[in-house]
Amino acid sequence: MSDKTGIVITGASGRMGQMLIKTVLESDKAKLVGCVERAGHDWVGQDIGVAMGGAAVGVTVTDDALEAFSKAQAVIDFTAPAATIAFSKLAAQARVTHVIGTTGMTENEIAQLEPAARHAVIVRAGNMSLGVNLLVQLTKKVAAALDEDFDIEVIEAHHHHKVDAPSGTALMLGEAAAEGRGVKLADVRDSGRDGITGARKRGDIGFTAIRGGDIVGEHDVLFAAAGERIVLRHMATDRAIFARGAVKAALWGQGQKPGEYDMIDVLGL
Amino acid sequence: MSDKTGIVITGASGRMGQMLIKTVLESDKAKLVGCVERAGHDWVGQDIGVAMGGAAVGVTVTDDALEAFSKAQAVIDFTAPAATIAFSKLAAQARVTHVIGTTGMTENEIAQLEPAARHAVIVRAGNMSLGVNLLVQLTKKVAAALDEDFDIEVIEAHHHHKVDAPSGTALMLGEAAAEGRGVKLADVRDSGRDGITGARKRGDIGFTAIRGGDIVGEHDVLFAAAGERIVLRHMATDRAIFARGAVKAALWGQGQKPGEYDMIDVLGL
Amino acid sequence: MSDKTGIVITGASGRMGQMLIKTVLESDKAKLVGCVERAGHDWVGQDIGVAMGGAAVGVTVTDDALEAFSKAQAVIDFTAPAATIAFSKLAAQARVTHVIGTTGMTENEIAQLEPAARHAVIVRAGNMSLGVNLLVQLTKKVAAALDEDFDIEVIEAHHHHKVDAPSGTALMLGEAAAEGRGVKLADVRDSGRDGITGARKRGDIGFTAIRGGDIVGEHDVLFAAAGERIVLRHMATDRAIFARGAVKAALWGQGQKPGEYDMIDVLGL
Amino acid sequence: MSDKTGIVITGASGRMGQMLIKTVLESDKAKLVGCVERAGHDWVGQDIGVAMGGAAVGVTVTDDALEAFSKAQAVIDFTAPAATIAFSKLAAQARVTHVIGTTGMTENEIAQLEPAARHAVIVRAGNMSLGVNLLVQLTKKVAAALDEDFDIEVIEAHHHHKVDAPSGTALMLGEAAAEGRGVKLADVRDSGRDGITGARKRGDIGFTAIRGGDIVGEHDVLFAAAGERIVLRHMATDRAIFARGAVKAALWGQGQKPGEYDMIDVLGL
Repeated sequence: MSDKTGIVITGASGRMGQMLIKTVLESDKAKLVGCVERAGHDWVGQDIGVAMGGAAVGVTVTDDALEAFSKAQAVIDFTAPAATIAFSKLAAQARVTHVIGTTGMTENEIAQLEPAARHAVIVRAGNMSLGVNLLVQLTKKVAAALDEDFDIEVIEAHHHHKVDAPSGTALMLGEAAAEGRGVKLADVRDSGRDGITGARKRGDIGFTAIRGGDIVGEHDVLFAAAGERIVLRHMATDRAIFARGAVKAALWGQGQKPGEYDMIDVLGL
Repeated sequence: MSDKTGIVITGASGRMGQMLIKTVLESDKAKLVGCVERAGHDWVGQDIGVAMGGAAVGVTVTDDALEAFSKAQAVIDFTAPAATIAFSKLAAQARVTHVIGTTGMTENEIAQLEPAARHAVIVRAGNMSLGVNLLVQLTKKVAAALDEDFDIEVIEAHHHHKVDAPSGTALMLGEAAAEGRGVKLADVRDSGRDGITGARKRGDIGFTAIRGGDIVGEHDVLFAAAGERIVLRHMATDRAIFARGAVKAALWGQGQKPGEYDMIDVLGL
Repeated sequence: MSDKTGIVITGASGRMGQMLIKTVLESDKAKLVGCVERAGHDWVGQDIGVAMGGAAVGVTVTDDALEAFSKAQAVIDFTAPAATIAFSKLAAQARVTHVIGTTGMTENEIAQLEPAARHAVIVRAGNMSLGVNLLVQLTKKVAAALDEDFDIEVIEAHHHHKVDAPSGTALMLGEAAAEGRGVKLADVRDSGRDGITGARKRGDIGFTAIRGGDIVGEHDVLFAAAGERIVLRHMATDRAIFARGAVKAALWGQGQKPGEYDMIDVLGL
Repeated sequence: MSDKTGIVITGASGRMGQMLIKTVLESDKAKLVGCVERAGHDWVGQDIGVAMGGAAVGVTVTDDALEAFSKAQAVIDFTAPAATIAFSKLAAQARVTHVIGTTGMTENEIAQLEPAARHAVIVRAGNMSLGVNLLVQLTKKVAAALDEDFDIEVIEAHHHHKVDAPSGTALMLGEAAAEGRGVKLADVRDSGRDGITGARKRGDIGFTAIRGGDIVGEHDVLFAAAGERIVLRHMATDRAIFARGAVKAALWGQGQKPGEYDMIDVLGL
């Protein structure tokens, strides 16, 4: 009998859903025990391997999330805010780890995860890659070490389908820089420069967003002073890194006390 | 007797003015024959070398531009629009080449140079560096060779004193890209991305402006498609390149027919 | 009845082989009519779709290249020099276009393709991407426009499995730069800098090779002078661009006269 | 009477010497009290301001180092190994802080500074910029946090006059990476890649050296894994940052106990 951790993937037919399924299938520490799609979706009732255009893998897509969760140790969920809140309640009921990669959640939506976090482990992060989370730590450290002679700019590039700017990860980096400096990002944020802007305000943290092609996600934190610059850069070239981070979080969650965690906890940074 | 081309520098006390003076003094093809400042400026009446904190060079700063121009073959002028229009009339009267590096001129102000261009050579460019002008040509060529599967973005970085965005050079590059594609920049320009922008529109030309430290001027033209990217980049690290370009333009102007020219003409690109 | 161009892929089980097969299967202008592997390979006799871990596609892998070629209009071949020479003879016999992406061929091996090129179309390129071939053209043009005040360096980065340095594409770019300058690359090539090298020799073309992770392929051509730099950069982030270039070459080859061509011909650059 | 710290500059006529002199003259915490050149040099006996082509500043260049040192609180020395060893003895005799930016010192030469460090403060660093020293710290931290799935490469670029590769700063960064990983750099160093190198060895730290134009100094530490990369970058664009760091070290040395220090101590990183 296998002692791999049993994992359910929600939003199974989506781009991230399929990436997560492939990653779990290739893992030697996790196994796929369930795939969830919304009621009425074509894939419900099909073997997930076949639905994805390959060979059967013995897991049927279901629209009954609770039943799927109850056979698993963890759920990985990159869906949408409303679905994620609903899933959090079911995951708490099933006492399984809920790994949340869903983006665009408001403060209010995030607050709705709290009841679930009293009964189960939740790991939630805007970006699940090892590299980005390390960059967040470095940004805070460097911002604390340097004074305002160094202007800070966060520069990000993403594919042309992205609908918001700056990216959530860019804002995470900006928050880290502001925290390092002991200021609030809202007070120093400067984004969308265009036209007659006047000189850059000392202490501001600027954001620029590049959009093009199929760029997975690139982030630079620039510290620019007279005569020198430091750049901390992360490049993601394969979405699989986010899926691998999520599986790592699901494994890490086993045996933790209920509560809400992030990738800094998982990675022990 | 020297056969070097005699040059007058306007705005002699400014950062670009001083850079131009040093460049002319070091040139083996040009010689400094005059320096102009506005009436009432401290430097008027002083030897320019002494005023700049060094040894005397035998040229006294004057506020009488016409007299200075009449002893020269060329004037190099990085001042402000109103001054440049006035200088153009005097340069035409003196029949000397007028090299204009002044930025921020409106269409209307540019039109006011036309009368002068009927009597003297005017070389005007938003950026006098060899590299940038070459980049403009490449951008046009690449934009013409690639279709709209390649998203075009112009990314520029400048020092924190700069008051406008995107830079004049970035717009020059954007114009070249639009021309290469056979569209008007005004129809496809996308600058100042911030907030919920929606997906990038196919065919748009995007602009982003980074500001920090003492960055002299850096421009990237990015062509991003699925699976590949081309970047055309220029980095200026020393304002002297603009001064050297201006001196080259002043020398080139000798013997040309009256009219308005740009650096593409001077460089023979 | 379909009027898509029928294509055979050699080396079907390899990484590039599988990428080519997927690309042809997704194409609306080409169709897969054969897959070739060496005698004795596990996949021979299997449906290629099944062998690749997916659903059947109705094409059985064969070790009889000539039979496969005779049912096609083109062969795409990213294998090894000896195999490629053998395939060229069979492709010539079958009068089909032979698209060659095989790297590491010596001058002598390339010469052995000549007899085949008298009877069939051969398209051979060290790099089949649109972007790289455009970069080669730009490099030649810029090297011709700039004098030796601009030092030229070719900087490339590839994954850690790569066994040779500099890359074939870097050398292609170096050749283009040398040609632009009217010199022979062999006379100015400077690679493998290490230790006490002395000052850089004016006119040299330098090469540096970065190796790490799974970088698909990145090439910079740097032109560095006093105070300014130009960089022409290509980044490949998905091997599919090479496969798409190869399919484009296979389609282009239909109706051309026998002879040896490259991607510059195909792309009309 | 001024309470600024009195500073002597050795190698006064060199490029770094003149930069140091200008920096001290502009400082509001340090004052120039001496300039040393070798016996027989043209500048000996001249006012240093005049020798540098400007106005007199009241400090005469001398070839008597001990006398100059005895009137100062600190000496800043970017000369050559043999001169630096000799100066260290004189600085110890005069009990003044000796700030050493001299590069290319062997282990044996460094050992010869020890006697002096028993009597006076020595601050010695391969690179005196705030940014580079911060980068060294970050490199060590990141190398410790990531395993060997991340390949480490140190990429540097310098002007075409530089005679050695990799740069001293690149080696400093490589040492920091090796230390973070708990290995010896000598065991994993891979520099000068050229020809058939074989696949990159896991755990190696690679070095590449770009040379061109007047690049002051740029260093990237790349950590590349499957699907993601982190880059820590420093760009120096003005040698003044090294001079400012040296002056900061001279001021910091006042009141410290005799001994050998580096910029990590000075910057409190």
